[in-house]
Amino acid sequence: MMRSVLSHPREKERLLSYFETQVMQVLNWLATYSPDEEGGITRLLYTEGWLETQQALALKMESCGLTTEFDNVGNLFGKLQGDDRDAPSIITGSHIDTVIQGGHYDGAYGIAAGLLALDYLQKQFGKPKRTLELVSLCEEEGSRFPMAYWGSGSIAGKRNFEQIVHLQDAQDVFFADAMQQCGFGEGTGRDSRRHDIGAFIEIHIEQGAVLEQDGVAIGVVETIAGQRRLKFEVIGESNHAGTTPMHMRKDALEGVSAMIGALRQEAMRLGSPLVATAGRLQVFPNVPNVVPGKVVFTVDARHANEQALDSFCRWVVQRFTALAGERQLQIQGTEWFREEPVPMNEVLKRHMDHICGEMGISSKRMVSGAGHDAQMFEHICPTAMLFVPSRRGISHSPEEYTEPRELAVGVLVLTELLYRLGYEGEEL
Amino acid sequence: MMRSVLSHPREKERLLSYFETQVMQVLNWLATYSPDEEGGITRLLYTEGWLETQQALALKMESCGLTTEFDNVGNLFGKLQGDDRDAPSIITGSHIDTVIQGGHYDGAYGIAAGLLALDYLQKQFGKPKRTLELVSLCEEEGSRFPMAYWGSGSIAGKRNFEQIVHLQDAQDVFFADAMQQCGFGEGTGRDSRRHDIGAFIEIHIEQGAVLEQDGVAIGVVETIAGQRRLKFEVIGESNHAGTTPMHMRKDALEGVSAMIGALRQEAMRLGSPLVATAGRLQVFPNVPNVVPGKVVFTVDARHANEQALDSFCRWVVQRFTALAGERQLQIQGTEWFREEPVPMNEVLKRHMDHICGEMGISSKRMVSGAGHDAQMFEHICPTAMLFVPSRRGISHSPEEYTEPRELAVGVLVLTELLYRLGYEGEEL
Repeated sequence: MMRSVLSHPREKERLLSYFETQVMQVLNWLATYSPDEEGGITRLLYTEGWLETQQALALKMESCGLTTEFDNVGNLFGKLQGDDRDAPSIITGSHIDTVIQGGHYDGAYGIAAGLLALDYLQKQFGKPKRTLELVSLCEEEGSRFPMAYWGSGSIAGKRNFEQIVHLQDAQDVFFADAMQQCGFGEGTGRDSRRHDIGAFIEIHIEQGAVLEQDGVAIGVVETIAGQRRLKFEVIGESNHAGTTPMHMRKDALEGVSAMIGALRQEAMRLGSPLVATAGRLQVFPNVPNVVPGKVVFTVDARHANEQALDSFCRWVVQRFTALAGERQLQIQGTEWFREEPVPMNEVLKRHMDHICGEMGISSKRMVSGAGHDAQMFEHICPTAMLFVPSRRGISHSPEEYTEPRELAVGVLVLTELLYRLGYEGEEL
Repeated sequence: MMRSVLSHPREKERLLSYFETQVMQVLNWLATYSPDEEGGITRLLYTEGWLETQQALALKMESCGLTTEFDNVGNLFGKLQGDDRDAPSIITGSHIDTVIQGGHYDGAYGIAAGLLALDYLQKQFGKPKRTLELVSLCEEEGSRFPMAYWGSGSIAGKRNFEQIVHLQDAQDVFFADAMQQCGFGEGTGRDSRRHDIGAFIEIHIEQGAVLEQDGVAIGVVETIAGQRRLKFEVIGESNHAGTTPMHMRKDALEGVSAMIGALRQEAMRLGSPLVATAGRLQVFPNVPNVVPGKVVFTVDARHANEQALDSFCRWVVQRFTALAGERQLQIQGTEWFREEPVPMNEVLKRHMDHICGEMGISSKRMVSGAGHDAQMFEHICPTAMLFVPSRRGISHSPEEYTEPRELAVGVLVLTELLYRLGYEGEEL
């Protein structure tokens, strides 16, 4: 049997208490950067607060004995050099940026957990066999510029400088100018593209309420769900709300209401992991005494299985078209966003299952309905994700919360996995 | 049997041809005032274009032998003095103002028809027994200031200067200042309140498609429908569209969709003259990848019968509350607008039925789902309304249209009614 960071099961409790205190210290310290007036964090890419945070993190990493380096887009790496200089790195980490009025945990937890894990491993076990790295990715949310996964995508070769040439933020600041202001950009540092990564492991809050509801400590991500976003424009006839008898109406909003009802019914029938959401809807002319002549709305559909997702989206278009037809409404649908499902690495998933089993930590395989940096890394290396519970599933809000003990359990599992991969040379 | 403007049925065709030409001339002439760039009319209360139109109309009335007078809010009257100086006046007319980008017929047709009727009657039959008047009401639509029926309401004592003290238009111009700019206001002319009206008759385009669909020439308005406008706020829980399984959602938009479906179903079941419309709807946060946490929407319900309308609105609140409850959504409803149904005068309705019957003109009794100046007059005198068809029911749009022949038929019926009331002394 593999050795563990715990030389005896009794050590588990002691280590959890230690991580509990430590993780809260790091998270509270991180939350002193870019706080907003609503009690949340607003840390947008290439802002002053963002730069201060990365720079402070670099110092913190160095104080933990890691060798730091920024790449040319602003991803920050802290390296714990291994004995085998040729073996590709095992990297853990997450993103530093937040949405507007974000919480204290999304992204930040993955960085804090990785920092604690590497710090503990080095102090306890010294130099690893394989190089371990912590990454504080510069951007994931797409909250400032219309571009998500900029950090991880640049590493994986899925993002490049050409793609951002025309991008501007809400204040018309160009992406490249903002980047340059922070001292980054093409030629400013190490090329962000990497070919020397042996595995990527990201720990993150669930952002859903499944673990909490099921009373499970760790979610082992099976697959990051594929996404389709569709936009529908439904056209009827704007008419006087007083003079148009019910049977003469072509009420676009009534038609769309039927579509939204059908969407939920079918998604409920097909069941998890399918989710489908009509999130954005606009009515025209949107006046109390006028029968709505036009409605534009979106459908966001996600599933772990590509074929199931395709089949559901085909059903949506067919059913909506039929419902429109019954009401003499015109309908046009377009897909404006598509992401394929990304299955996580099976070997790593099994490692995590085993670790949880051996340590007496409850865990379950689950689909991530949200997108994550891990889906970029999966293009270039074996990749894994693990989740800890989110209270009431709240995320992207100052009310995001996970119990310190739940955070500590995640740190312990991550530490153990990094130990097995980095020190014990467990197979990938 | 009562005498008619037609001394012989064969005259009908000749008179219709005459009115057809004349009514188009007056309407086209009126449409030269306050035209907008979209091919419609934008003639808002107390604007320069509005004042020019009233002044031009005064000259036109005088050229037809009417004695004109403005009251102190800007209603314009053209009087054809009758022999009996003590008998209250028979008044016809409509409003001169339009919505923004209105059509050529709404309001204007009632003024044009009245002008032609009085002109024809005076030329053919000279001085009437009872005084006949044409009124060009200053305002009905409430398009510039948040106040409708200002003209007719001032005549009927339902509007007064105190009510407009704080009102401003979209450019922050005060109502009283705009009025003064045009030379009107308290003390500037004859008090608008009148106590000497024997009857008010308004002819108007239907603004619905019932007459057109039924192939009927004249609508005799039974009742002007009562209105209730309700606003509902439905609160669920904003959640991540990817990470929140379907069965854990409190989707406010899905709940409201069920309400809108139920609203239509029940309104269809109860049938005409009930109409119910969800016209305005806003989703929060209204983002494609977030489950909607809040929806605010309006319901406009109308019926000719007060009790039926009340009962329907109670059903709406109960059903919506139940649908919200089933989904663990919170709901709050408030009524923000209420108008009682206003039945038109039965004696006048019968006169119009008879006239149409005797002249071989198809007619039907119908409810007006839209509000009109007539509902103000009904508080102070016997009041009647008649409708002519509106092509495809379109109104409040440059596309408003009624065939010249259909307009002429309306003028003929109005002329005959005024003849019987004004010259033949038919009972009211």
